[in-house]
Amino acid sequence: MSGSKVYLDYNSTTPLAPEVFSTITEALQRCWANPSSSHEEGVLARQCIEKARGHVAAMIGAKDSDIIFTSGCTESNNAVLRSCVRHHQHLSKEEGTTMLPHIVTSNLEHGSVLRTAQELADNGEIELTVIKANPRCGHVLVDDVIGAIKQNTVLVSIMHANNETGVIQPVKEISLQMARLIKEQKYTDLFLHTDTAQTCGKIPVNVSELGVDFISIAGHKFYGPRIGALYIRDLESKTVPFYPMIIGVGQERGYRSGTEDTGYIAGMGKAAELVCNNLDTYHKQLKEIRDYLEQQLTEHFGDDVHFNARFDGVERIPNTSNVSLIGKNLEGWNVLKNLKHSMASTGSACHSKTAKASQTLLCSGVPEDIARNAMRLSLGRNTTKEDVHIFIADLRETVKALKLVN
Amino acid sequence: MSGSKVYLDYNSTTPLAPEVFSTITEALQRCWANPSSSHEEGVLARQCIEKARGHVAAMIGAKDSDIIFTSGCTESNNAVLRSCVRHHQHLSKEEGTTMLPHIVTSNLEHGSVLRTAQELADNGEIELTVIKANPRCGHVLVDDVIGAIKQNTVLVSIMHANNETGVIQPVKEISLQMARLIKEQKYTDLFLHTDTAQTCGKIPVNVSELGVDFISIAGHKFYGPRIGALYIRDLESKTVPFYPMIIGVGQERGYRSGTEDTGYIAGMGKAAELVCNNLDTYHKQLKEIRDYLEQQLTEHFGDDVHFNARFDGVERIPNTSNVSLIGKNLEGWNVLKNLKHSMASTGSACHSKTAKASQTLLCSGVPEDIARNAMRLSLGRNTTKEDVHIFIADLRETVKALKLVN
Repeated sequence: MSGSKVYLDYNSTTPLAPEVFSTITEALQRCWANPSSSHEEGVLARQCIEKARGHVAAMIGAKDSDIIFTSGCTESNNAVLRSCVRHHQHLSKEEGTTMLPHIVTSNLEHGSVLRTAQELADNGEIELTVIKANPRCGHVLVDDVIGAIKQNTVLVSIMHANNETGVIQPVKEISLQMARLIKEQKYTDLFLHTDTAQTCGKIPVNVSELGVDFISIAGHKFYGPRIGALYIRDLESKTVPFYPMIIGVGQERGYRSGTEDTGYIAGMGKAAELVCNNLDTYHKQLKEIRDYLEQQLTEHFGDDVHFNARFDGVERIPNTSNVSLIGKNLEGWNVLKNLKHSMASTGSACHSKTAKASQTLLCSGVPEDIARNAMRLSLGRNTTKEDVHIFIADLRETVKALKLVN
Repeated sequence: MSGSKVYLDYNSTTPLAPEVFSTITEALQRCWANPSSSHEEGVLARQCIEKARGHVAAMIGAKDSDIIFTSGCTESNNAVLRSCVRHHQHLSKEEGTTMLPHIVTSNLEHGSVLRTAQELADNGEIELTVIKANPRCGHVLVDDVIGAIKQNTVLVSIMHANNETGVIQPVKEISLQMARLIKEQKYTDLFLHTDTAQTCGKIPVNVSELGVDFISIAGHKFYGPRIGALYIRDLESKTVPFYPMIIGVGQERGYRSGTEDTGYIAGMGKAAELVCNNLDTYHKQLKEIRDYLEQQLTEHFGDDVHFNARFDGVERIPNTSNVSLIGKNLEGWNVLKNLKHSMASTGSACHSKTAKASQTLLCSGVPEDIARNAMRLSLGRNTTKEDVHIFIADLRETVKALKLVN
């Protein structure tokens, strides 16, 4: 990318893996017919989609029939929230009750969950509880989440790992506690959702282990294209109800209308297949380079470097390091803007245009003056020690220059 | 496609134009960064998107700022309906009224309009009027549409041309009458939407001429990729209110969240540019071959061929011919299934798996026994007279064989 610049913004988006790129271009050229057409070219496109569905399902240990394709993780997240609201409305109508559905989420969530929930609350469609992450560990506490569940709770939505800090949230533990609660209190319509945008391709994501009802998946975070998928547990048996958000002529078995994008779906299948085959390697390599980066930062900046998301005993995804350099003129946006040989972001893309401290970091217990200096360094499969050296040298030059500015 | 078979299903989907394919692959490789990122690669992706927006806007004579990109025409249609409902809800809240919003549409619409409207009505969220097409002309009558408008009408949604018959609907005339009505009766919150999935790239689509507030656009019907766009009149000035359906970190100026798909957006821009530069040629060629096809059908099948959508004085898009062959065993699905050298569909993709007569044809005045035999023949930019000859020969062989079956 851009000749020789070092890209450390893989949590924003990844390039297409070469195998994914080939799969997409081949599908765009060979399987371009409408997958709903009965003729043989339509059938060919349909097969291409079903093959990809198998790979995406395999990546998370799901049944093929539990996967639907969407336009992206944002759509998947929106669809889950709205579906649960619709489900509660149907139940209420049947039972003649008027209680609003209640959604529990956290202040670390991506905007596609948090803002959607807030909008639903502002419209008077739901009752909303936003759990605060614990500032001593950078994740929500299981007890806080479980304690918020009430008789009218329809959905708990907690991301698998945060995009800015990389901190892994206790989704598995929440699921276990929810299962207990459901059993004891006989809740039948209480569901758990997790957004795995930052975990697929980096750590294992398995539906049985996580024990969730819904999983949102983002292709472009694991070297796939800009579409998404949604896992819905036992969709065929309707154990977990799902009401489509986008309605039309009934593609994706009626759950998501719109002519399927065979090219990108095939590409996402290939990206998932790569994860199935290589996750251990990806994880090991990413962690090795990330740890090396952090070691190098410590070596070169000593006490002036602050790691914003390294909490004792708390797991992070292996590719992410959120760091601040302490000092005058070293706000994250300012440092990044002045780098000559490397690129990164201060936080998620939505924060890229602002000099304000990241809400996620503040919620994770990072003091405001340190949060303002934060840079999210996120590594990719091909990031090397040499890249780290280039970045560190670049950073040292930049910091040196900025410190001289009045 | 499939070696030498003749593809006559371009209304289902088109292949990518070679220029579009190149644009997509180049953008996927060169502009893959997140367009929201501040670094130079993010800026490059952003520029790519804005260039494409300009071409899509130019294709329909709109301002760049009136265009937002979506995942497809189905999403665009859903978004328009839901936005108008939301707008009415806001107004009602402000004014303390409880009247439901009223939507007027037609029985010819695509499922993404008609089924969405029906679902909203079933949920008690809207009052719905479905105008019946006039069976003597295959389109809705302006007076029928205008006559259905009431004080609580928020949206009239009439497609530009029907996907199965190709019949062009009187959108322009409806818009003129609505403008008169709005002036006389001082309606301020009554909007007009049209779905141009089947017209972009075939006939002129111009926002000023059509006088509509919303236009849905489908990339993959004019040799572009499987994404969509939505035109909203004077979006910046908020003359036409728009409430986003998909919420997140605020891409597309907050109107459609989700990381933008730079590759496909660039491709759609290129497809629109091709239309801007070549529409007259496309129209002329398509019409010439379609007319030749119809002439050949008449020559070879005489009174046994029924043109299902040729109404006196009624305009059709230039690439579509909906025909039935009269006779035993000649149901559309059966004839198409037995063709050896050509491919087409009985109607829109959603009907492809059923032997039932198309509702659209029945609504357009085609008797049920004839409608059951219908084949939608839709031509593309590269369809030749030679293709027509191959298809006609194929059809003759097939019909001959089927007539012998008991």
